[in-house]
Amino acid sequence: MDQTNVQSLVEQVLSEYHHGGRNGLTIPIAVSARHVHLSQAHVEALFGAGYQLTHKADLSQPGQFAAEETVIIAGPKGCLERVRILGPARGESQVEISRTDAFKLGLNPPLRLSGDIKGSSPVTVIGPKGSVHLSQGLIIAQNHIHMTPEDAAAFNVEHGQCVKVKVKSERPITFENVLIRVSDRYKLEMHIDTDEGNAALISTRGEGILIPSHTPGVIHS
Amino acid sequence: MDQTNVQSLVEQVLSEYHHGGRNGLTIPIAVSARHVHLSQAHVEALFGAGYQLTHKADLSQPGQFAAEETVIIAGPKGCLERVRILGPARGESQVEISRTDAFKLGLNPPLRLSGDIKGSSPVTVIGPKGSVHLSQGLIIAQNHIHMTPEDAAAFNVEHGQCVKVKVKSERPITFENVLIRVSDRYKLEMHIDTDEGNAALISTRGEGILIPSHTPGVIHS
Repeated sequence: MDQTNVQSLVEQVLSEYHHGGRNGLTIPIAVSARHVHLSQAHVEALFGAGYQLTHKADLSQPGQFAAEETVIIAGPKGCLERVRILGPARGESQVEISRTDAFKLGLNPPLRLSGDIKGSSPVTVIGPKGSVHLSQGLIIAQNHIHMTPEDAAAFNVEHGQCVKVKVKSERPITFENVLIRVSDRYKLEMHIDTDEGNAALISTRGEGILIPSHTPGVIHS
Repeated sequence: MDQTNVQSLVEQVLSEYHHGGRNGLTIPIAVSARHVHLSQAHVEALFGAGYQLTHKADLSQPGQFAAEETVIIAGPKGCLERVRILGPARGESQVEISRTDAFKLGLNPPLRLSGDIKGSSPVTVIGPKGSVHLSQGLIIAQNHIHMTPEDAAAFNVEHGQCVKVKVKSERPITFENVLIRVSDRYKLEMHIDTDEGNAALISTRGEGILIPSHTPGVIHS
């Protein structure tokens, strides 16, 4: 059996297998632009004592919102202006940027799961009433899929598992190490950053096929 | 046979098959930053009558070089400064940028194979002695692999075929529709743009595994 036959056979098996499920394996994909999560203490340091973030628009994940407020993110080589704050306020401040952004700042943040900021890059955040220097908190967010326990059952995957997602696009790519995050507070959606979106020629929203994988994932927390 | 078993079996078959070749299937990957190719007429329009590009550094593809000269690329929403010219002068001018760059310019160039500029985006190029408005020539370059006929034989692929390339990286991705370009003037190397490089967390150089594919490719010329 030559290479053509092996490849065709394997692709046919995989394709038929993956598309045979009752629900299919399609995942909505959203591109996350650079953004900031702030502790309430940092909200007040940047915007004034007692300040509360202003709701601008709901995000896809229930309870999360884009705030009216933006900040400047600064590093040794440059800054990013008008970076959106996402609410509500969290326990610890965190800044999520792309690798492209990191070059502009002159910083080298690690690839991390959102919330896992221990030992990540320091960065300066500037607001209208003050600025704060975070000793850690700047990361490139690892891509992941939010889903409910019901979704996880339908897709036959578990919290903490890594899967592959093939993006349907004019420039198709497969993300090989996508973390599954399961909670009944979530809504089914894959999050990628702007570099990953631009690589796949997705500007804001796209669609992908979930392919279960047994490659060990990077789970930091 | 459950999903885990099917997936594991198929991955094992593919892995053993793909790594069994005498030469392995590793491809060096280079990230192409935004750049410009100019016709000699446009070199003179931008830099002065009789001007010749100055050799700064050899590129990996034999005969190609980075010039000392740079230009400004301008669109309706912004411009890109110090964009490197690659020599030698060509028959037609062409500007290759990333999707990230396209947003900054406010333009929407098509994904094209280098050299296939018919009907691509108009763009303005500005030099120290003048500027030119190209009625077409702005593209996002389709990723591709340069190789010699000997490489093509070793990899068992043909000119014009599309393959997959899995990038080894902290954020591994597979490019699904990579065009094979064969010439005895070429040196083995895959070229991706900065968005694709940043998505895979490759800054300048990386390495990938070539996986033959029979998915129809996008070949524009």
